[in-house]
Amino acid sequence: MRQSQLFSKTRKEAPKDEVSRNAELLIRAGFIHKEMAGVYSFLPLGLRVLNKVNNVIREEMNAIGGQEILLTTLQDRELWEKTGRWDDAVVDNWFKTKLKSGTELGLGFTHEEPLTALMKNHIRSFRDLPVYAYQIQTKFRNETRAKSGIMRGREFLMKDMYSFSRDEKEHSVFYEKAKTAYMNIFNKAGIGEITYITSASGGVFSQFSDEFQTVTDAGEDIIYVCDGCKIAVNNEIISDNKSCKNCNSSDLKERKSVEVGNIFNLGTRFSEALNLQYLDEEGKEKFVVMGSYGLGPARLMGTIAEVLSDKDGLVWPSRVAPFEVHLIEVSDENIEIRKKSEKIYSALTSHGIDVLFDDRDLRAGEKFKDSDLIGIPLRLIVSKKTESDGLYEVKERMGGKVSMIKEDSLCDFVESFLKKI
Amino acid sequence: MRQSQLFSKTRKEAPKDEVSRNAELLIRAGFIHKEMAGVYSFLPLGLRVLNKVNNVIREEMNAIGGQEILLTTLQDRELWEKTGRWDDAVVDNWFKTKLKSGTELGLGFTHEEPLTALMKNHIRSFRDLPVYAYQIQTKFRNETRAKSGIMRGREFLMKDMYSFSRDEKEHSVFYEKAKTAYMNIFNKAGIGEITYITSASGGVFSQFSDEFQTVTDAGEDIIYVCDGCKIAVNNEIISDNKSCKNCNSSDLKERKSVEVGNIFNLGTRFSEALNLQYLDEEGKEKFVVMGSYGLGPARLMGTIAEVLSDKDGLVWPSRVAPFEVHLIEVSDENIEIRKKSEKIYSALTSHGIDVLFDDRDLRAGEKFKDSDLIGIPLRLIVSKKTESDGLYEVKERMGGKVSMIKEDSLCDFVESFLKKI
Repeated sequence: MRQSQLFSKTRKEAPKDEVSRNAELLIRAGFIHKEMAGVYSFLPLGLRVLNKVNNVIREEMNAIGGQEILLTTLQDRELWEKTGRWDDAVVDNWFKTKLKSGTELGLGFTHEEPLTALMKNHIRSFRDLPVYAYQIQTKFRNETRAKSGIMRGREFLMKDMYSFSRDEKEHSVFYEKAKTAYMNIFNKAGIGEITYITSASGGVFSQFSDEFQTVTDAGEDIIYVCDGCKIAVNNEIISDNKSCKNCNSSDLKERKSVEVGNIFNLGTRFSEALNLQYLDEEGKEKFVVMGSYGLGPARLMGTIAEVLSDKDGLVWPSRVAPFEVHLIEVSDENIEIRKKSEKIYSALTSHGIDVLFDDRDLRAGEKFKDSDLIGIPLRLIVSKKTESDGLYEVKERMGGKVSMIKEDSLCDFVESFLKKI
Repeated sequence: MRQSQLFSKTRKEAPKDEVSRNAELLIRAGFIHKEMAGVYSFLPLGLRVLNKVNNVIREEMNAIGGQEILLTTLQDRELWEKTGRWDDAVVDNWFKTKLKSGTELGLGFTHEEPLTALMKNHIRSFRDLPVYAYQIQTKFRNETRAKSGIMRGREFLMKDMYSFSRDEKEHSVFYEKAKTAYMNIFNKAGIGEITYITSASGGVFSQFSDEFQTVTDAGEDIIYVCDGCKIAVNNEIISDNKSCKNCNSSDLKERKSVEVGNIFNLGTRFSEALNLQYLDEEGKEKFVVMGSYGLGPARLMGTIAEVLSDKDGLVWPSRVAPFEVHLIEVSDENIEIRKKSEKIYSALTSHGIDVLFDDRDLRAGEKFKDSDLIGIPLRLIVSKKTESDGLYEVKERMGGKVSMIKEDSLCDFVESFLKKI
């Protein structure tokens, strides 16, 4: 894409009421727009990142047998009364609204209830199980405070998967697969090394759950990390005798972290309340065993913005970057440089590489500053200097490594860089 | 995809309270689920259609310079008060909700206001114009009655594009391009021949607007069609002297129709109310001239379901079909037939063809019935008969044409069929 056509502009300052680093950077770089506290719109660059995050998630959910669906925001009161989750005294972050008839409706903050009810039309016998269904859909939570940018919104995109299994044994096999799929997602998104599978409380659903916690000073959680085993324990459930549940080591390190995913065994909590049964091999009615698997794409994007950025701006890993190459023309109105930039732009794009082409009439310094702020993985400069010695400067945004590459090797260089990551 | 893995099941009857033909068929075929009147969830087959419709729309919006964004559902009361559209006496189909602080919020039924406000950060000078931004996002409208299935929902997906131009002249050039892009969408979606650009009232925005009306007995609108000019006039604005505005012919035919798109010149209605100005070439402040361009992907999907279906079920045009080929194994447990079906399944999929493979242990009659109901464009049967004479029956769902094709020509046959459409 030509940057001269991109409508979003970078800015020096974020709105004064923005206190989170992720939103401040994303607003300044033109990725998002703040509508109100905890409610953000996505501009072209931001939506490109969000879509790439979503596609990484889809790859992994499909690989473990997930089938994608799309449930609704508007929620039927009767259904949630059956599970005891309609009352604001039980769930304190509902947004509610009303039909003209006066009937109260909820805005979905999660979707166990409607999906369990829906599955009654599709699950009858053991032959129909297991089922793994997921969606990437907007959730609404009426948070009292919303000061974490896109890491904790009042309106936010969520990937929620639900598993329907015959029994605990079948459930457990999938639950372990889901753990691996989640770690694959965090690896592809560039935060795998600082993300820990963390034992946590199961809340109202079960004794324990597993969280995925990314270490960052911006985090709201405290976890205790065992570096040897690459796992952690949430401080909610850690005992006085702090030790790793895998190796028993007491050398655990206290870290601030942000929860980027969580998975639960729901047992028969919802299938019993909503009567989702199946006929087993012996013709006996049994309740379906369920699990839920949450991961917020925008929260993941905000976490990446928060933990990988530096003083100059955002730093995107290739798989989730808005573009792969930032091609910068430094022409000073020299017609040969312009022609060369166009030639390289079309060579890269015809190789299927995502390029943002800074063809704007601006000084080189401004272009480089914008480029650092936007944070595309590779920056490629076409200038008089490159024209004269036949070598192009390619700079990695993460780490700042510079390579000088010949014109006919540019596509190969970029492709092998992208493969490596 | 293997049909044995697909969790959705077909059913003989739709829910008794479902009165629309599109929703009845889509529910029976396992494409959607009714949550409440006017509120439908999308199951895997339905979501595949919706995504394909969305991609056809994106192709055409991107081709005319559209940049995709994603605005929010939650709406700030103050902003809508500035344009006079907050009051329920003015806009009678708001859904509203409240923050814990008591602050009232709206659920967006359209997005002129937030996008105009957002653009104040990105449009300053004539050099920043024109801008064309669009989103595919969920809208909420508190309809008193909701009896048209997914053709008119209380919660529904909308593609809404907004144009920002320097003046009426620049606006008009784009407006005409948008008309062509819309007709391209309806052609690709298989309803171009029965869809008419229709002069209509501009409502509160302007004197006139253009609607895209698809002729069907399920429609709620009445239009007057000039077959020669392929245009129509909505009965809202037709005069007593009914004649075609292009050729003056008085031979107009009255037809029932459904509005599948509409486009408006907004003039400076919103830029004045929200003070969106730019500096022109002479340094003078001017209000931006806007347009809006609506098209409902789910309404389009519902219209296709309604107008192209027959007594046996749904009939999908290739570009928006959930799959391109329905491969049906009629094995009667014959191991050779099973092997052959698997071989053909992998040959087709390795050619990039979307295949639903009915590998279920069911009688042939049941499989054919499901296949007719689901409505995939090509049905390919592998049975003992095909094995013995070396020819495969390929049946077109639309029109029922049958071709007998040799194994090594199957992929070519399918590919040329798909190209043709």
